Amino acid sequence: MRLKLALLGFGVVGQGLVDHLIHNSEKAKVEVGFDPIVVAISDFRKGSIYDPNGLNLKLVLETLEETGSLDTYPGSNELVRGLDAIATIIESNADAVVEATYTNVKTGEPAITHCKTAFEHKKSVVMTNKGPIALALKELEQLAKENSVFLGYEGTVMSGTPALRLPKTTLIGNNITKISGILNGTTNYMITQMETGKSYEAALKEAQEKGYAEADPTSDVEGYDAMYKVVILANAIMGKHITVDQVECRGLNTLSREAIVAAKANQRCWKMLGTVEELPNGDIRASVKPVEVAMDHPLASIGGATNAVTYTCNMSGEITLTGAGAGKSETGFALLIDLIYCHLHVQKQANMTLMN
Amino acid sequence: MRLKLALLGFGVVGQGLVDHLIHNSEKAKVEVGFDPIVVAISDFRKGSIYDPNGLNLKLVLETLEETGSLDTYPGSNELVRGLDAIATIIESNADAVVEATYTNVKTGEPAITHCKTAFEHKKSVVMTNKGPIALALKELEQLAKENSVFLGYEGTVMSGTPALRLPKTTLIGNNITKISGILNGTTNYMITQMETGKSYEAALKEAQEKGYAEADPTSDVEGYDAMYKVVILANAIMGKHITVDQVECRGLNTLSREAIVAAKANQRCWKMLGTVEELPNGDIRASVKPVEVAMDHPLASIGGATNAVTYTCNMSGEITLTGAGAGKSETGFALLIDLIYCHLHVQKQANMTLMN
Repeated sequence: MRLKLALLGFGVVGQGLVDHLIHNSEKAKVEVGFDPIVVAISDFRKGSIYDPNGLNLKLVLETLEETGSLDTYPGSNELVRGLDAIATIIESNADAVVEATYTNVKTGEPAITHCKTAFEHKKSVVMTNKGPIALALKELEQLAKENSVFLGYEGTVMSGTPALRLPKTTLIGNNITKISGILNGTTNYMITQMETGKSYEAALKEAQEKGYAEADPTSDVEGYDAMYKVVILANAIMGKHITVDQVECRGLNTLSREAIVAAKANQRCWKMLGTVEELPNGDIRASVKPVEVAMDHPLASIGGATNAVTYTCNMSGEITLTGAGAGKSETGFALLIDLIYCHLHVQKQANMTLMN
Repeated sequence: MRLKLALLGFGVVGQGLVDHLIHNSEKAKVEVGFDPIVVAISDFRKGSIYDPNGLNLKLVLETLEETGSLDTYPGSNELVRGLDAIATIIESNADAVVEATYTNVKTGEPAITHCKTAFEHKKSVVMTNKGPIALALKELEQLAKENSVFLGYEGTVMSGTPALRLPKTTLIGNNITKISGILNGTTNYMITQMETGKSYEAALKEAQEKGYAEADPTSDVEGYDAMYKVVILANAIMGKHITVDQVECRGLNTLSREAIVAAKANQRCWKMLGTVEELPNGDIRASVKPVEVAMDHPLASIGGATNAVTYTCNMSGEITLTGAGAGKSETGFALLIDLIYCHLHVQKQANMTLMN
């Protein structure tokens, strides 16, 4: 059975996924039988198209490039236009929803509502939106489980670098007592630039020019972006139940260029570290803040916009994973690998139904 | 059903596994129902004990510590002593064999024979021996598949750092065109020491004193250890069919201290890199040799006995994994995670049998 997908939101992330589905899906098809079709795309601005028999993805991208809209996608007899996100979830024949809408990270909406609606209609969800997972992971997991559907969110931390699936699949059995990482590429890039003597303002401007930082850089430089990721790592990987307000948060804007240059002269360096740690008394301590580290620290050498995370494990020691933390291809892959696991989940469910 | 294990060879690696089974197995039991018993241990020197109802692992370790032998393990009515490895595989009621015998890396024996015997008797195998996997992976995989049993070999590359399971489970669908890594801790430690001005001989002596290098360091310093790992990465992860003699191999002993010191002075460094790469024309190029890299190379900062490997992926970019490449706890974990996957495999087989 081919997995049928509905894409909610069709910006860079959704288009990254579609690129992979067009050009890079052969290997997963051969190896694990992953061969999905996209039946619906609904974007608040670009329009909405639904064809129960599947959309022509090359034509979708061509249409969007030529006209900036999905409204000009050529219709078949069965094509339905104009369904909003909720209607797409409920009325389409999709098995899985790719949630990539523009979502308020503080409320998690509209993504949380999209998730719940999908689960209640027995549809799986994969997403890269941090807010819903940081705010409501346990509730969403429970709802997905009750409805025997799949919830994937690999791309919420370090995009296509498997910061969540690595510990979940390859470190099973380990007691992970600490996770610490460079979880925001913008601020790491800025520190690398400030180490050469540039001012905070110049480093920020350069990060914006390179496309790392948003026009409004608050979420990056004040540490909020990393704060949400710390909550996800604590809850999804360490099995805790912490909330965003339990994370001590100090931004890069609290660190002076002088401190950065002085550390460098002492063979040390500053890093914006997001950390969650289980103390010997069982308490959880979580923070995002500038930390001065020695050059032999596992994360000291991570330069530019690269992300990295270290898991401290009781059996396998310190394991560090390094890779991109953003990017169209990488984030598109994060959705793809979640969809591959969704496909395997659906297959398993089908087998279990056969057994009963 | 509890997975029943037979341990062949009971040196550091086997004892590391037993330590984890005694002290660190609760989490895997709760999370995935992993709750094995060890029914047999057969070691060429330490003796052999088999109890179909399971051995008392604490008593096994105490007995070994007190007497240096398993022969003094207190007998029950059903205890059988003296079975050799082959008899243990064939005659015990074990479902899975933990192959940790002293094995000749060039011939892969006796481990290859143990694997084949196990598979023919419908028993799974997990192992950390490189030789059999580098020499006979395809044949062993085929035989395991034919007999519907499991073959695990995570510990053959980077011990408990998941260099094999990471790409297999978290990067599915990616075309991995290059894998390059620091796959031997001894030589990396020696280079780090030589960078401070020490001679090759002094660095080797220190590595031996720290327990990183064997009394006969040939396998490490001449690159053979890493060469086998390159073959495993090429065949198990990139799906190739290369043999050991296709790997260009130059040892650390071909690199002068002067070259190492000169590189350091130029903000560069030497690393012993094991690399396999698919060229644009489809050819495979594999090598183990000293390579001079810039300080911003992803592997430049890996110091001491630490291992690291970079996977170049068409979708998720460059992903680097860093961690221990040896150690009792780490290698014991490599066997444990393979056994956890073996347990999941056995469960799946049982479900499929129910379906038919």
